[in-house]
Amino acid sequence: MVRLAGNQYGKAEVHVVRIGRGEAFDGGDLIRDWTVSTSLSGDVSACYESGDNSNVLSTDTQKNTVFALAQQLGDVEPEVLALALASHFVSTQQPITRARVAVQQHEWTHFGPHSFARSGRHTRTAVIVHDAEAGTTVVGGVGDLVLMNTTDSEFSGFPRDKYTTLAETNDRVLATAVDARWRFRGSDADWSGAFAVALDVLMGAFRDTYSYSLQQTLYAMGTAVLGAVPDICEVRLALPNKHHFLVDLSPFDQPNDNEVFYAADRPYGLIEGEVLADDAPDAGLAWT
Amino acid sequence: MVRLAGNQYGKAEVHVVRIGRGEAFDGGDLIRDWTVSTSLSGDVSACYESGDNSNVLSTDTQKNTVFALAQQLGDVEPEVLALALASHFVSTQQPITRARVAVQQHEWTHFGPHSFARSGRHTRTAVIVHDAEAGTTVVGGVGDLVLMNTTDSEFSGFPRDKYTTLAETNDRVLATAVDARWRFRGSDADWSGAFAVALDVLMGAFRDTYSYSLQQTLYAMGTAVLGAVPDICEVRLALPNKHHFLVDLSPFDQPNDNEVFYAADRPYGLIEGEVLADDAPDAGLAWT
Amino acid sequence: MVRLAGNQYGKAEVHVVRIGRGEAFDGGDLIRDWTVSTSLSGDVSACYESGDNSNVLSTDTQKNTVFALAQQLGDVEPEVLALALASHFVSTQQPITRARVAVQQHEWTHFGPHSFARSGRHTRTAVIVHDAEAGTTVVGGVGDLVLMNTTDSEFSGFPRDKYTTLAETNDRVLATAVDARWRFRGSDADWSGAFAVALDVLMGAFRDTYSYSLQQTLYAMGTAVLGAVPDICEVRLALPNKHHFLVDLSPFDQPNDNEVFYAADRPYGLIEGEVLADDAPDAGLAWT
Amino acid sequence: MVRLAGNQYGKAEVHVVRIGRGEAFDGGDLIRDWTVSTSLSGDVSACYESGDNSNVLSTDTQKNTVFALAQQLGDVEPEVLALALASHFVSTQQPITRARVAVQQHEWTHFGPHSFARSGRHTRTAVIVHDAEAGTTVVGGVGDLVLMNTTDSEFSGFPRDKYTTLAETNDRVLATAVDARWRFRGSDADWSGAFAVALDVLMGAFRDTYSYSLQQTLYAMGTAVLGAVPDICEVRLALPNKHHFLVDLSPFDQPNDNEVFYAADRPYGLIEGEVLADDAPDAGLAWT
Repeated sequence: MVRLAGNQYGKAEVHVVRIGRGEAFDGGDLIRDWTVSTSLSGDVSACYESGDNSNVLSTDTQKNTVFALAQQLGDVEPEVLALALASHFVSTQQPITRARVAVQQHEWTHFGPHSFARSGRHTRTAVIVHDAEAGTTVVGGVGDLVLMNTTDSEFSGFPRDKYTTLAETNDRVLATAVDARWRFRGSDADWSGAFAVALDVLMGAFRDTYSYSLQQTLYAMGTAVLGAVPDICEVRLALPNKHHFLVDLSPFDQPNDNEVFYAADRPYGLIEGEVLADDAPDAGLAWT
Repeated sequence: MVRLAGNQYGKAEVHVVRIGRGEAFDGGDLIRDWTVSTSLSGDVSACYESGDNSNVLSTDTQKNTVFALAQQLGDVEPEVLALALASHFVSTQQPITRARVAVQQHEWTHFGPHSFARSGRHTRTAVIVHDAEAGTTVVGGVGDLVLMNTTDSEFSGFPRDKYTTLAETNDRVLATAVDARWRFRGSDADWSGAFAVALDVLMGAFRDTYSYSLQQTLYAMGTAVLGAVPDICEVRLALPNKHHFLVDLSPFDQPNDNEVFYAADRPYGLIEGEVLADDAPDAGLAWT
Repeated sequence: MVRLAGNQYGKAEVHVVRIGRGEAFDGGDLIRDWTVSTSLSGDVSACYESGDNSNVLSTDTQKNTVFALAQQLGDVEPEVLALALASHFVSTQQPITRARVAVQQHEWTHFGPHSFARSGRHTRTAVIVHDAEAGTTVVGGVGDLVLMNTTDSEFSGFPRDKYTTLAETNDRVLATAVDARWRFRGSDADWSGAFAVALDVLMGAFRDTYSYSLQQTLYAMGTAVLGAVPDICEVRLALPNKHHFLVDLSPFDQPNDNEVFYAADRPYGLIEGEVLADDAPDAGLAWT
Repeated sequence: MVRLAGNQYGKAEVHVVRIGRGEAFDGGDLIRDWTVSTSLSGDVSACYESGDNSNVLSTDTQKNTVFALAQQLGDVEPEVLALALASHFVSTQQPITRARVAVQQHEWTHFGPHSFARSGRHTRTAVIVHDAEAGTTVVGGVGDLVLMNTTDSEFSGFPRDKYTTLAETNDRVLATAVDARWRFRGSDADWSGAFAVALDVLMGAFRDTYSYSLQQTLYAMGTAVLGAVPDICEVRLALPNKHHFLVDLSPFDQPNDNEVFYAADRPYGLIEGEVLADDAPDAGLAWT
């Protein structure tokens, strides 16, 4: 005998842009550029098991709801949009007991009252899980933030087994693409303030940590966010080690005093860690 | 106070190709084309918290180990490679208590004793988690398998709320890119036999299910695998609904009797489900 | 003074799927899966220079035309679709004197009368340029075809300058992703027959050439197509050298007798060449 | 009879990072992050036709040369690196008569003397062709620059044929990803000054042009560059129309006064144009 042990269904990557006409302080426009993914679960096993769709809110409707709420809510933080969507689905659809809504916000910068240039510096993320029993969790974050320190990074003192060939180094380039997610203690906070501070201290910790390993830098970054934003109780980081290998120019009788590097794509180190406040509430479904 | 609540680190996407010279039945070569990602965890908090690397097996060494074991093991199934790697790391590195090894196998087809064409039909996957306490789990799978039924698919009977505009349909195109993962009951099985049967019945169930929803098709596919491969106790499927929208040709006075479609990229439906045998052993860390 | 020296505008990547109901020999369906890009040029300088759109067929209309003609034409070769589209635009829009239409055909294989699995083995391409003065050219092709020879490939005898460190080798892996384009002598041919033969001899020449360089293999492939398909007068090939580097396992006291390789992504060699029949007609605008 | 009608071979996508230690005005580091592709041609037909490699500078050597010259040249503009590489290959390898070198420069911003964040705002490009007979051409450019005007854009007055369904609009969102290439009159100029001015006026022309079509905006952008940088004699632009479609919220009794849009991926309009100064020198091989 088999059974449906878990399920979720939704609409992925609804790309919605909301323009706030004349809403900028200078009378220009505001812009919100979001990619939204919704996912619902609940008592929909009849659909999976026999094709009975009577409890299944179509993914097309989920998409429409994203557009409709984006208009109703106006210029809000991504966390606010996601919270409203998740709450809407669970409160209006009796069979749906859980909604997960993920928003990726693409950033733009003004260069005229009606003119914007897309900033590729980073993206901002928000993931809300709203469950009828387990409650609501809010996870904010930043992605696609590529950082490099050109010095003040070592890697040595590691164990050597029979497959170890790596030389120790006391001066290397350290580069990564930051993927950071932070869990809020509650479902009400100064979302944009928290984002701004978190981004600032993540970059500051990366810059200011004399690094003996990317793991150490990761821990410093997570700790910095917890120290700077009391509303945040947990930080999860995934940091690829974007290797920069010093090129051997000695065959050409040229020096290479930590100057010319080959930036490799694959393979890459991948360092992941979770930094948790001792008094953090239970994570519930936050990370699902 | 904060603490490191979880960590893992490793080398991602080591692309290794192993050629078995003269090992094919006809005297030609065999090929294994793998992308391998390793990830270790254990008592390495000193590294995160203070930069003490004495317990950290470098990701470079992990990469070397992938190459070395690929040579030692020869022409093996991806599950065998991943099991050997995971066991190696935990058994030889005292501070490491858990290893997760993921392998993606790219398929090639012969067209000469030494000549191969890459098959883009699907990729095969294996994920092993080997934990000193929780034991070993094996998850096989298939990805990048794009399937389409041109008929025998409906979608109707779904609830209509204020944001519903979707019309009911009793004849639509159903297309998806199958991402299936199956958990084995133990760490010893006929891996390639299981893969071949699972792939066959996944495709058969997709083809033969008169579909009232992609959810229903998903459940039929998962059930078919459990029914056909006794060594498998759980199947997890993620099926994007690759929408094919009928183009309205009426402005041009042309018929369009389910003939010409626009294939959309985004947004897309995403249907996920887990089908579990009633007597399945505990999943442990299989899905981490 | 400045002027508009050239222009083209169109709709890129219209993804159209046409299903032929009951048209297969066994009563099942046929499928054509095309990504179509159209591009028009002509006397539209007023649009560029002053925003006068009276001569500009909108790209939205170009998209509609793709869908409409896909329905009208039915199950045709991609060259036929592209020829019809290009001719349509030039003949019906007086200011438009040139149309370029590119089609990428994605291949599917049957596994049931109404069931298809996408074949990732290769894609088929067609590019038509139809110019009121210069006439019509037809270029067919194949892309995304990844091939590997595990032996019978050398690379030696090359010049050594002060920056040369590469060792000579008399047995290496040769792998590439074939991008081949062939120009037809006229605008009427057995398109699918030509494609089948060209694909077959491209693969055969890759397999059967004992290779001293990828350049040599390229020339053999192009020559084979010209020899096998009289309707084709020119072949252009772009062959990335997908490097497979032998891994040095000697630090681990392991042999590596051309067995275990690291498959690199970047950088890669890129070899390009044009093989032309002596009696080829002028290429006109074929390669624009 | 067939013959080799054209050829080129080289190393693509050498990713080199050069760090200038203490070279910044404040004593911090400078960084150059380049992806370099080289391509050589000349009297190498013996290689294609018979596998004689005696005239073929290996692509591995080309890669080494990129690294070596990056060290020798230090903190230079991408045009300077490309010019030096192209000249080196042609002048030192007798059979090589032409070199094409393309550089993509990835931009970083300081946030500490040794700390950098990658700017995804745009990339800078340079393409040099150095030919023993035809001389040297320099093309600079910018890519990946995504711009949006939220108003001051119309599209109307276009012809309507039987396949036209598009409504006229007098207020739409205009968004594009700028790909601009500019040809210099000579091989000596203030490269970074020209880049800065060109980028500035491209963005300014996009912002300030009340647009009746993207074609018109393109022409204004190209004209602006020619007007602002006397060293530039030709500009080629490829501007995708990144469609933002107004969402119909009327089924939900909601207004949508140019506020909420669906940002589509495919298909997209693609507008291309070349703006040329009347006194521009012959383009030679610049655009090959």
